[in-house]
Order: sequence, then C-alpha cells, then structure tokens
Amino acid sequence: MSFPARRSALRALLPGAGVDALLVTDLVNVRYLTGFTGSNAALLVHAGGDDASRFCTDGRYRTQAAAEVPDLEPVIDRASALALAKQARALGAERLGFESDSVTVDAHDALAAAAGDVPMIRAPGLVQELRAVKDADEVEALRRACAVGDAALADLLAAGGLRPGRTEREVALDLEDRMRAHGATGPAFETILAAGAHSAVPHHRPTGAELQRGDLVKLDFGALVDGYHSDMTRTVVLGPAADWQRELHALVAEAQAAGRAALAPGAEVTAVDAAARGVVERAGRGEEFVHGLGHGVGLQIHEAPYVGKTGTGALAAGMVVTVEPGVYVEGRGGVRIEDTLVVRDAGPELLTHTTRELLEV
Amino acid sequence: MSFPARRSALRALLPGAGVDALLVTDLVNVRYLTGFTGSNAALLVHAGGDDASRFCTDGRYRTQAAAEVPDLEPVIDRASALALAKQARALGAERLGFESDSVTVDAHDALAAAAGDVPMIRAPGLVQELRAVKDADEVEALRRACAVGDAALADLLAAGGLRPGRTEREVALDLEDRMRAHGATGPAFETILAAGAHSAVPHHRPTGAELQRGDLVKLDFGALVDGYHSDMTRTVVLGPAADWQRELHALVAEAQAAGRAALAPGAEVTAVDAAARGVVERAGRGEEFVHGLGHGVGLQIHEAPYVGKTGTGALAAGMVVTVEPGVYVEGRGGVRIEDTLVVRDAGPELLTHTTRELLEV
Repeated sequence: MSFPARRSALRALLPGAGVDALLVTDLVNVRYLTGFTGSNAALLVHAGGDDASRFCTDGRYRTQAAAEVPDLEPVIDRASALALAKQARALGAERLGFESDSVTVDAHDALAAAAGDVPMIRAPGLVQELRAVKDADEVEALRRACAVGDAALADLLAAGGLRPGRTEREVALDLEDRMRAHGATGPAFETILAAGAHSAVPHHRPTGAELQRGDLVKLDFGALVDGYHSDMTRTVVLGPAADWQRELHALVAEAQAAGRAALAPGAEVTAVDAAARGVVERAGRGEEFVHGLGHGVGLQIHEAPYVGKTGTGALAAGMVVTVEPGVYVEGRGGVRIEDTLVVRDAGPELLTHTTRELLEV
Repeated sequence: MSFPARRSALRALLPGAGVDALLVTDLVNVRYLTGFTGSNAALLVHAGGDDASRFCTDGRYRTQAAAEVPDLEPVIDRASALALAKQARALGAERLGFESDSVTVDAHDALAAAAGDVPMIRAPGLVQELRAVKDADEVEALRRACAVGDAALADLLAAGGLRPGRTEREVALDLEDRMRAHGATGPAFETILAAGAHSAVPHHRPTGAELQRGDLVKLDFGALVDGYHSDMTRTVVLGPAADWQRELHALVAEAQAAGRAALAPGAEVTAVDAAARGVVERAGRGEEFVHGLGHGVGLQIHEAPYVGKTGTGALAAGMVVTVEPGVYVEGRGGVRIEDTLVVRDAGPELLTHTTRELLEV
C-alpha cells in the first residue's frame, strides 16, 4: 500500500475519534505514514487531504525528506510537533487529535499552548490499529526478514558454530554477522543466547560463559530488513539430550503447536494465549511460563496486538504475530520455541521455517 | 557512587519538587538509581529511605533483579508502575511525584487512578539533573568507551580499511566489529559513514555506495561499554585533499576548538554554542551549520545538557558533553569534527584522543 493510501486509511478513522485532524508524533507512526526514516519529524494529517496536511523535520534532514517524502509539503523546524500544532488553525483544523499513548504530559502542555484555540483531543492508537494489519508489501518485508533469520541459523549450525568452548557472546555475534551477510541491516533486537542454567532466564543477555556439552542453548534472535523485524526462538541441546530436556522441549513444542493452531481471524487474544498456556498448566508447570504468548511484529519488534492473559481484542486476517511459549526451571534450564506467523482465513502462515524438532548438535 | 548513594541524592531533591516520593518509570533513570538492566521496571523512591522504597519488575526478571538490585525489596508485577502507584498510600506517600517528561498522557490517567487519593505531582527531570553530572565511576566508563572508539578507528586506518572500492556499509560494519574486538557491547548508535556528497547529509545512513578517491569521508560512531556511550566524529579525505576540502576542514576545526575552549563550569550552553557558531558565521557559512553544537552523553547517547542555540542553563564540573560543529555543502560534501569531553574547573578533559588534524588516507 502506498504512503498516500495509508494516510487515506487513517483519514477514515478520524471521524470515529471525534477529530478532523491528527498530529502524529510517534516516529514509527510517521515512518509508516510517510516513509521518513530520520530521527525528528511530525506529521499533521488533515481530513481534507494531503494538500491540507503537513510534514515537518529539522534542517539536518532537508535533503532526506525531499527524497523520502516527495508528496507532502515540508516544514523545516527543529521543534517539529510544536511547529505543526501552531499551524493547525491555519490548516483548518477544528479538533486536533494527538497520540495520548505516546505524547508525554509535559509535551501535551506545550502542544496545547501552541495549538491556541484549537482543542486537542486524545486519539490514541489510531495508526497502531492500521499497522496491526499488514499490507502485502509489509508481509513481503517480514518474509524476507524471517528468511534471513532462518538462513543465518542454518549457516551457524552447518559451520559448527554451536559447540562447547565458545562463549555465549561469541555465538551471538557470529549469528548477527551471518544475518548481515544475508542482507540484514542488523539484528532486530539484542540477541538472546543463553546456555545451561542461563536458558532458564527468559531475557538473558549473552555473557562470556562458555557453552558446555549437555547444555540447553536458547537462541532468540531476529533480523532487521527494510525497517521490518523478524523474531524466532529455538532451543537446542549440545550433544544427546537428557530425558528431562527432551520432556521439557516436547511440552513446550506441544504448547506452541496449540498456540499456532488457535491463530484465526476473530479469535480473542486471551483465548489464543489460553490454548497454549493450558497445555503447560495441565502438565503442572503453569507457574514456570512467566510471560505472555506473543506479540505483533512489524516496524517495531513489539507492537499491537499483545497476545497474553491481560491482552484485549481479537485477531484479524493480515496480522503478523509471534507464538512463543516458554517453560523455565530456575537454576537448571529453560526451553522457548517461537515462530512469526501471518493470521490468515485459511489458517496461519509460518514466516519462520527452521525445524521445531529438538536439535541435538 | 553507589546506587543507594544516588537514591539519597535524589531524596535531597524531593522537597524542592514539592513531593515526598517519586515514581521513577523512565527505564534509564531506573537503571541509574538501581543498576537494573531489564526492559520492564519501576521504582518508587520515598523520602523516608530505602525501607519505604520499592522496586518492581515482572516474572521474567525475578532472578536478574535479585542479582542486580539486592538492596531493595522487589515487587513482581507485569504492570510495574501501576503496582507501585497502588502501594503509594501504604508506603506513606502524601504527594507522589511522577516523571511528566516521560510519562504519557494515557499512562498518567492510569497511574492517577491507581494512586487513589494520593495526588500525583509533575516532577520532571530530577534524575536527569543528577545524571548530567557524572560521578567518578561514570567518567571511567565513558573513558573506556571513548578509548574503544579511538582504538577501533586506529585499527581501521592501520589496516587500510578506508580505501576506494569499499562500500559505506562495509566500512561501517568493519568499524563496529573492531569496537567489539576492543570490548564494546556493540555500537553506541547506528554508525554514520558518509562518503563524497553523502558527507553533506548530517545523519546519513551507510549505503552500498563505494568510497572513491578524492572523497570526503565522515565517520560518526561510538562504542557502548558497561551501558555508557562514546561519541566521536572525524572527517578524512581519500587521497590528497582539494583546496576546498582543506579550507572546509580548517574552518570546522577552528570552530570546534573554540567550542571546546568555551567549556567551563558556569558557562551558559547558548554561549558555548555561540563560541563555535560565531567562527562559522564570520566565515559566512552559518546557514550550513544546521544543528546544535553538542549534547550530554552517558547512559544515553543524547542526554542533558543540550548545547545549542535553544538550550537552557549552564555547564557544571563533571558534565560530559560532545562538541561537534559541522558545515555541509549540499551536493558536494561536509565536514564534522566531534569530541567527547568532561567539563572541569581546570579546563575541559578530552576523552576522545584521535587527532583532529585533517587525515589524507
């Protein structure tokens, strides 16, 4: 979908939010609506169309803005959001929406002063609502990002990169280098590489600890490609698996399959979470599954929808989410298995393809 | 300074802000006050001391929190800030400050509801004020981070890594790898590597464009070490410099020296900016210096103080700031020279040591 088409889709949401214009200040939302990738920008989307809308960035990005956002009249001002709030009246805005879920209390004070007699109305989540359902171009970018992750892990395994004696940090950097070699801008987030007892720490940061024979090794990583993020977790064993490792892995794999099977348009996110969590709870290990089941992924590594016990709403076709149950035995080891999938009417489409069988490497 | 000492220093600021407790929700501020490095946490600092204060994170980080924050009683709750707001009354808070410069409008609504009859008071920037002046441990971490940057650039030059035919992206990754080899967790920010006309784009992102003989090549990069960021820019020429390149570099070097010389406790940040900017303006190129002179650097790559035309306040001994004037000739090339320095009574101390002479490589 083109950027003007995305702005049109946003305009269709403005009446429901009770506003005739939206001041978009969240940079990821600005990128989604314009293609701009710099670090300072704001966008005023007016119901009247692009002619009554404005894009603002500062002088550092004049050239970049002309190249990336050729279809909107630019305003050059360091205080980008304030500059556009000041123009709201002149652009014909009567009720100016703002992103109350990202604008700070102090920033709101300043914006309201700049907008003068144009009232500022809370309008959270409108662009996130659009972003939650990916268009074909976005799914394609996510598919490429996931393919990079698959290829990098395959390379790592083929090269014998997972072996006793290497440190967690070495393996994490090796994996990140392999993602770059396959075309990633870089890692989608700080790679989690956790061996042995560390695998029981859900968000372990790689250390100088050496991998040892018999370790569970958890790899949670992703690639950034054209601004889109992939996300995958696999947990392998160095050498033959012990019975408890095999049982733990089988339990998580069963829960993960149940979670994937529950992905469908119209399914409540709490029900999807429950489908996977129930498997773990029935095995008496519910207390060791300490996080939500998954999250949306796209221009951000974590975005709407949140799939967990405390989530709200239902899935829709075109959403791209992770399914990542984990069971963590403190002091001993943990297993997490995670895929990224597209929600489809005909059943979920996997974007990550590395085998979910227990690998003994 | 120990984490308890930092919390004591914060307590001394509470009366001036008209509160008897502060709900710290900015994650970098939480890290500064506790040492916690996870991705979800909040901290309630009560004037009565650490016994009446609480730290909260979620179940994923139970083990990590016990290791990193052994001296505060932990609360385990996914909704960390809300959980602590609910406890405000029980902990004896009468007026609960919140970080209105980072709490969103929507989050404030939820926090105020959770706090019940305890009024929530705007208290922005208190921890940032403390963070702006670095203690000895922090200066040491920044010194190490800057040394890594110097060493990586020296290695790159010694290895002939800056040569015609390599792409901007290759050189940027090479430089980042060399920083890791010297002990960096990773780059402090996305490396800017800009050759030829790209050097005129202040925040250019590396592309597949090949470096060519005669190019100005701008390298703006830094290392992340123990959570602290270094920041340095050098602009070199591939081969013998043309006269215009030499003149541009000399002008920026003169402005940069003037900016460094103006760093002193008590100096207004606008005056420091003006010291460097005046040099560029007197050369008739003020319009081509399109950004501020510098910024504080520490646990974040950009933090207080902001040193620019629109900055406020004065420098103090122990602040660590960058000085980075640039002049950009659109379509042709630009030069920026940046150092990281500690403000000292006896004159600024350079943490980045790579020569500021024009290198012809």
